[in-house]
Amino acid sequence: MQIPIRINPSSEQSLQQQVFDAVRGLILDGNLKAGAPMPSSRALSEQLQVSRNTVILAYERLIVEGYLETRPSVGTFVNSDLPEQGLFATGSEEREAAVPDRLPLAGFRGARPAVVNPNRHKLAVDFWVGRPDPHTFPTKAWRRLMLHHLSTGGSQLTEYGDPAGLYSLRLAISEFLGPARGIQTDPERIVVVSGIQQALNIAARLLIRKDTNAVVECPCYQGAAYVFDSYGADLRPVPVDEDGLDTRQLHDIDARLAYVTPSHQYPMGTTLSIVRRIELLEWANNKGAYILEDDYDSDFRHNGSPLTALAGLDCYGAVIYMGTFSKSIGAALRLGYMVLPSHLVEPARTAKALLDNGHSWLDQAVLADFLTNGHYTNHLRRIRQMYRDRRDCLIDALVEYFGPVQLSGLEGGMHIVWHLPDDLPDAAECQSLAENAGVGVYSLDGGAATDCGVPGPRDRTLLLGYSSLTPSQIRDGVVRLSRALPAVSESRIASRASR
Amino acid sequence: MQIPIRINPSSEQSLQQQVFDAVRGLILDGNLKAGAPMPSSRALSEQLQVSRNTVILAYERLIVEGYLETRPSVGTFVNSDLPEQGLFATGSEEREAAVPDRLPLAGFRGARPAVVNPNRHKLAVDFWVGRPDPHTFPTKAWRRLMLHHLSTGGSQLTEYGDPAGLYSLRLAISEFLGPARGIQTDPERIVVVSGIQQALNIAARLLIRKDTNAVVECPCYQGAAYVFDSYGADLRPVPVDEDGLDTRQLHDIDARLAYVTPSHQYPMGTTLSIVRRIELLEWANNKGAYILEDDYDSDFRHNGSPLTALAGLDCYGAVIYMGTFSKSIGAALRLGYMVLPSHLVEPARTAKALLDNGHSWLDQAVLADFLTNGHYTNHLRRIRQMYRDRRDCLIDALVEYFGPVQLSGLEGGMHIVWHLPDDLPDAAECQSLAENAGVGVYSLDGGAATDCGVPGPRDRTLLLGYSSLTPSQIRDGVVRLSRALPAVSESRIASRASR
Repeated sequence: MQIPIRINPSSEQSLQQQVFDAVRGLILDGNLKAGAPMPSSRALSEQLQVSRNTVILAYERLIVEGYLETRPSVGTFVNSDLPEQGLFATGSEEREAAVPDRLPLAGFRGARPAVVNPNRHKLAVDFWVGRPDPHTFPTKAWRRLMLHHLSTGGSQLTEYGDPAGLYSLRLAISEFLGPARGIQTDPERIVVVSGIQQALNIAARLLIRKDTNAVVECPCYQGAAYVFDSYGADLRPVPVDEDGLDTRQLHDIDARLAYVTPSHQYPMGTTLSIVRRIELLEWANNKGAYILEDDYDSDFRHNGSPLTALAGLDCYGAVIYMGTFSKSIGAALRLGYMVLPSHLVEPARTAKALLDNGHSWLDQAVLADFLTNGHYTNHLRRIRQMYRDRRDCLIDALVEYFGPVQLSGLEGGMHIVWHLPDDLPDAAECQSLAENAGVGVYSLDGGAATDCGVPGPRDRTLLLGYSSLTPSQIRDGVVRLSRALPAVSESRIASRASR
Repeated sequence: MQIPIRINPSSEQSLQQQVFDAVRGLILDGNLKAGAPMPSSRALSEQLQVSRNTVILAYERLIVEGYLETRPSVGTFVNSDLPEQGLFATGSEEREAAVPDRLPLAGFRGARPAVVNPNRHKLAVDFWVGRPDPHTFPTKAWRRLMLHHLSTGGSQLTEYGDPAGLYSLRLAISEFLGPARGIQTDPERIVVVSGIQQALNIAARLLIRKDTNAVVECPCYQGAAYVFDSYGADLRPVPVDEDGLDTRQLHDIDARLAYVTPSHQYPMGTTLSIVRRIELLEWANNKGAYILEDDYDSDFRHNGSPLTALAGLDCYGAVIYMGTFSKSIGAALRLGYMVLPSHLVEPARTAKALLDNGHSWLDQAVLADFLTNGHYTNHLRRIRQMYRDRRDCLIDALVEYFGPVQLSGLEGGMHIVWHLPDDLPDAAECQSLAENAGVGVYSLDGGAATDCGVPGPRDRTLLLGYSSLTPSQIRDGVVRLSRALPAVSESRIASRASR
């Protein structure tokens, strides 16, 4: 008895593996039926010209895996319990291709926020938003702390930890938040998360079900709008003006939550005024709503002191505060935190545990020391000055090459907003023209923001991040930009010619 | 004009901060009404006996934050746009306490899986399940790779990356899975996740909505059952016997997914037979369902070769495979991966991006090198032998101190299952008696498993993890256990007395 197997002696795979795969394939394809007799190991070894031991080992594995069975002093057979008909009668690739939509996804509405610029490698100068300067990464301190914790971590390196996060890190964060953001909290109210994106998921899991009303800023950060939408929320966009979210338009809206970026509205860069902060808190209290405060880049306040966070003003237990180290140290760390009203702490811890059983220990231990030893304060002082200088450089260069420019969002953060003059094309066109010239500048859509489908004058708004570029790169970028954008206005042409 | 403020010169807070806080407090509490005149900086500095400059700086900040406003050549006033009535008329602590349930959580059903033993610090010997030995953590290689990537990472340390994971890591995983698990895949079908818990969330977001039928094993891993439940699934528990999930009971069940642990069922430790593997795949294909294959500890196969994963047999595009490094390197890493049918890759990437924008770069880069350079294969070889020896040691010790014992789950993994003899109390009672004697052994409930509310004979099943204990600790633990558990049987008493 022979079976249709071929062996390739020059293959990278062992002969034993080839025999195993071939026999298994014959069984799964229905060419060897349940209960069929197999050739003896001697016969198959002669057929294939391989050692008998090779066949025996392959048979043993096929027996262990249940494809074959032996009957003492009779021989080896295909497992008679296997289903009768051929199991996988044709090649697997075609079959999967034939059922591309085996099932609709269960109500999953998903759009992906654009946190990475897909064209970044084509650009000479990229004003992409919200990027720290890679050279500011505190490599030296990080290395030292990492080596220390790797040597002394012991079982903390191998075991699960508290899903709410390492206590020492939560303590360090709580001590930072008092002076920095005016938030009095204790470590018990903090949950360590892998960035604000995860914090949004935790809040969404607690507060959103299908058709839950969720107020978002218009325009809004994509990552927030998309995640609420993916959980079935009914988005209620409320416009943003120069004082931030227009709270006067909230009164008629019943919602379970409002998502806001009060320190430096994303993308428009405005700061929520104290009057509106109070109105927002009162609205939340009246409606029984929660406020999700996304404080993504509040570490950078260029003019005056930082404003007290909404969470620092909250006396209703209505504010869920979300902070991150993505902007101040690096997004690749994936470390952030939430500060929760006390009655939401336990549900949030459970939601975090269900999501991923807590964050990586080593990164948390290193960051805790980095905060506690004063490294972070020094680090912030250094990069604050650097980013302020870069902001000034960008403003100067824009004025020099484009004349009087209308800018906003200057008080803080890592990007500015340029309200385009009438003689320039709209923002999407500017983005495209600039890209062709090797410069990245961004319309709201291109810059991870969304207008939630509400049309507005936003198509004349251009976002320029400055924090990751040196002054000479910034100037170079603006020069390139001035050449790339059509100069339709006489005065601008004159202004350029005189240079 | 005086206002009711006191300053404490010996406070740690600066005088300026104290003035700021005090005035702000008076405004927020309604003691200083909107539009009310403020004392001049000179008057307030005399009242408080602080320098005039201190008051001026505090006023400036209050003006920037919008609490005060100046009218040229008239004076400084409380912002007249602030709401009329007192905002926060009583202390904030009482108020939050008065609204503990400001809102019901929106349909959030959350129970927390017990991945950390809360009593671990009280135990002399802890047979907690699924723990790698902390001494096996590859500190030396990890340190070297980490230093290398910290020095050369550049902007990868500070920027967002591909939410699906680092390409080099996905490539390394795909190359590992062929020989190790019989899964032919390419890096495009892999998504790096922060452990199987997150993989379960991604699958749940794609497949589960309210009242979606989800088959789970009975008993089942808590982390899976709880997460499906939290997304609204209707759990359909199907019993497990010595061949794994009883697929004969599937025929009448219409479900969108089945969650299984085929290599080493959690918690019962059995292996899904090849016949049932095929039946399960056929069921999925007939019903249009997906199979979630949780391969949490398949790196440890003590007897014979590893079985081919379900994903390696799947020709319907029906299997979502989930693997982890939590058992082989350490849970504190929070690193795992999914292998997806090609038509689910894009939705899964989107779900991952929406969850957390991808995993930490440094850990991925280190792990990729660890896999690629052959460290991982060597590491696995070393700990496989070690864990097998420990399993043998545990079996020997149980036989020595308890006589013939009925065990299962021996073929692989990191824990065994002891089916308690009639003369011992039930598992919960044994767990409690052992704990009092400083030994951790676990009933299904205590060991992160759940019977999903289906009563069964499971209350006589005890779980003992062995991988993190040395042979002498294992023997010590069994000796303590033999003293802690009541010896009601004559033969057992005799057996002990003879020692």
